[in-house]
Amino acid sequence: MRKLELALGERSYSILIGPRLLADGDAISSCLDSRRAVIVSNETVAPLYLERLAAPLRERGVSLVSIILPDGELHKNAETLGRIYDTLMAERCDRTTTLIALGGGVIGDLAGYAAATYQRGIPFIQVPTTLLSQVDSSVGGKTGINHPRGKNMIGAFWQPRLVLADTDTLATLPPRELSAGLAEVIKYGIIRDEPFFRWLEDHMDNLVAREAEALSYAIERSCANKAEVVAGDERETARDGGRALLNLGHTFGHAIEAGLGYGQWLHGEAVAAGTVMAAELSRRLGWLSATDLERIRQLLARAGLPISGPALGAARYLDLMGHDKKVLAGRLRLVLPKGIGTAVTWGEVPEAEIRAAIDACCHG
Amino acid sequence: MRKLELALGERSYSILIGPRLLADGDAISSCLDSRRAVIVSNETVAPLYLERLAAPLRERGVSLVSIILPDGELHKNAETLGRIYDTLMAERCDRTTTLIALGGGVIGDLAGYAAATYQRGIPFIQVPTTLLSQVDSSVGGKTGINHPRGKNMIGAFWQPRLVLADTDTLATLPPRELSAGLAEVIKYGIIRDEPFFRWLEDHMDNLVAREAEALSYAIERSCANKAEVVAGDERETARDGGRALLNLGHTFGHAIEAGLGYGQWLHGEAVAAGTVMAAELSRRLGWLSATDLERIRQLLARAGLPISGPALGAARYLDLMGHDKKVLAGRLRLVLPKGIGTAVTWGEVPEAEIRAAIDACCHG
Repeated sequence: MRKLELALGERSYSILIGPRLLADGDAISSCLDSRRAVIVSNETVAPLYLERLAAPLRERGVSLVSIILPDGELHKNAETLGRIYDTLMAERCDRTTTLIALGGGVIGDLAGYAAATYQRGIPFIQVPTTLLSQVDSSVGGKTGINHPRGKNMIGAFWQPRLVLADTDTLATLPPRELSAGLAEVIKYGIIRDEPFFRWLEDHMDNLVAREAEALSYAIERSCANKAEVVAGDERETARDGGRALLNLGHTFGHAIEAGLGYGQWLHGEAVAAGTVMAAELSRRLGWLSATDLERIRQLLARAGLPISGPALGAARYLDLMGHDKKVLAGRLRLVLPKGIGTAVTWGEVPEAEIRAAIDACCHG
Repeated sequence: MRKLELALGERSYSILIGPRLLADGDAISSCLDSRRAVIVSNETVAPLYLERLAAPLRERGVSLVSIILPDGELHKNAETLGRIYDTLMAERCDRTTTLIALGGGVIGDLAGYAAATYQRGIPFIQVPTTLLSQVDSSVGGKTGINHPRGKNMIGAFWQPRLVLADTDTLATLPPRELSAGLAEVIKYGIIRDEPFFRWLEDHMDNLVAREAEALSYAIERSCANKAEVVAGDERETARDGGRALLNLGHTFGHAIEAGLGYGQWLHGEAVAAGTVMAAELSRRLGWLSATDLERIRQLLARAGLPISGPALGAARYLDLMGHDKKVLAGRLRLVLPKGIGTAVTWGEVPEAEIRAAIDACCHG
């Protein structure tokens, strides 16, 4: 088992990574405020892993309720959130009840947001079961739901008490979702960890083959990168750099997800295509060599990811990007790589260049 | 103008109290992150005060949007919250947009919660226009909405940048609402400020007559008490005492509000009757003399407040109280006065005593 600490003062917490963690009830049991917990999961994950998580907790005297939601980004909305609240109220859960998210990013975001807002905040534990959520969304405290007009527009920062990433759960992950997770893994290499990027170039085949040791290393290194960034900028208030750098490819990616309708492309797929757009833009600005752009495209493609976006037209992209949270005072701020291993946020990119980069990376 | 500081580190803010503050655009203008703000108000307050607040801001180059909601506690729900989000999205508000609440506690709670959660948090300013919100809900950062099964069950802690309490707005307040505000004013005297309680005994007639100087003093003293409590326990995590003491009368009061259906009794009216129940319980426990119980009843009655609750029956009260946030791990914790000027939280009160206190203070 690998263990990382996210250093956030009194909100610090551990991230445990490794096989057979679900069945170890002690880690979770020891951080509950009372002997009550509610597990939030979905119809895909619950049949596979709910009992593996629940049994050792019940053995330790924890009284459990479970809420099984429909699967998918389409359900990350106010209505599904209301179902969680309704159950918490009906079960008379109080402020000592811990909410446990068992699932991917959608479940983590939904349950985390419910935990942040039920009775103005109750304890929360993340048990991510997808690669994407293990390397990204379960760490850092961002929670939220989608608004019909925009993704993650309603939310809160709410740190978990514990993150428990059981690598065994990746065995049942559909290939597209494994690839989607790798998009965020590759991102860390591009924005701040050039040696990791090279390690990924050497080991991408091992990751796609789901070799346990390679996956564990990639998850740990990704979480370590994320933990460092989050510890330096918990609430994404740094004007330049900081947490915002984690959004490489996300502004373009959100436009793809929103433009096609949530649920058509996976988040990681949209981020991959968006990352290529950002890299293409960097190349046009003279910040990234054609060679490094090609290395990024190659690595994403080897991970099974799309490296061009849907042909929505540049105007539609720009319109959808205007609703992204990275817009400040009406101006688009983009995360752009400067070589491999460094990135910046930049709000002065000429619109013509953004259009040209989109056009260059979209194919009908 | 009177000025108080709420000391919360980087979340510290000023509370300004006095006449003619709405028309002074500088205080608000100087704490905006951009030249955009959204004013949330209701159909009662907006015709009276919106323009008085908006004109000096527009003169200072602030671009304003207003959201006018229906008036009343009945509308403090997810649906009305959705209307605020919808407007923020439609207007493409970003993280630099400031939300300004102009109204009473319902508007402050709703707008504050929208500010806490829109894009995971945007700047917020409170402009309370009722006595209750000026002395209580606008200070301290509690925001939220009601769930069909319980009041304030969904919410967040989100501190404003500024609280601007213009005492001129009290001129148009209905008498019942003035009384409701006085319930919370009297509360500060009971739980932590015996000299203030005596001052209130001497000046209640001046307050009910809305004499400006008396009102200003009562608001300042109330806010100073609240600011001290909040600064010591921002998120209500102190197990005993701390912020929880501000809930004197609230657990019983919530039962009254929920039992009759929200909107029948005003919050402050329910708190007043609940305060008498708590005081009666203290008397039964030997913590409060019959004389002091009578002083409390007298002062509340002189403020125009009910001093007995509706006859819902003790069983129904207890059931409704079980859904209150002050319940920890299934146990009812009550705030109880120990004499006048001190109070404690207590989770070991025998249920029979609670029933007896309720029965003694309810009349059909």
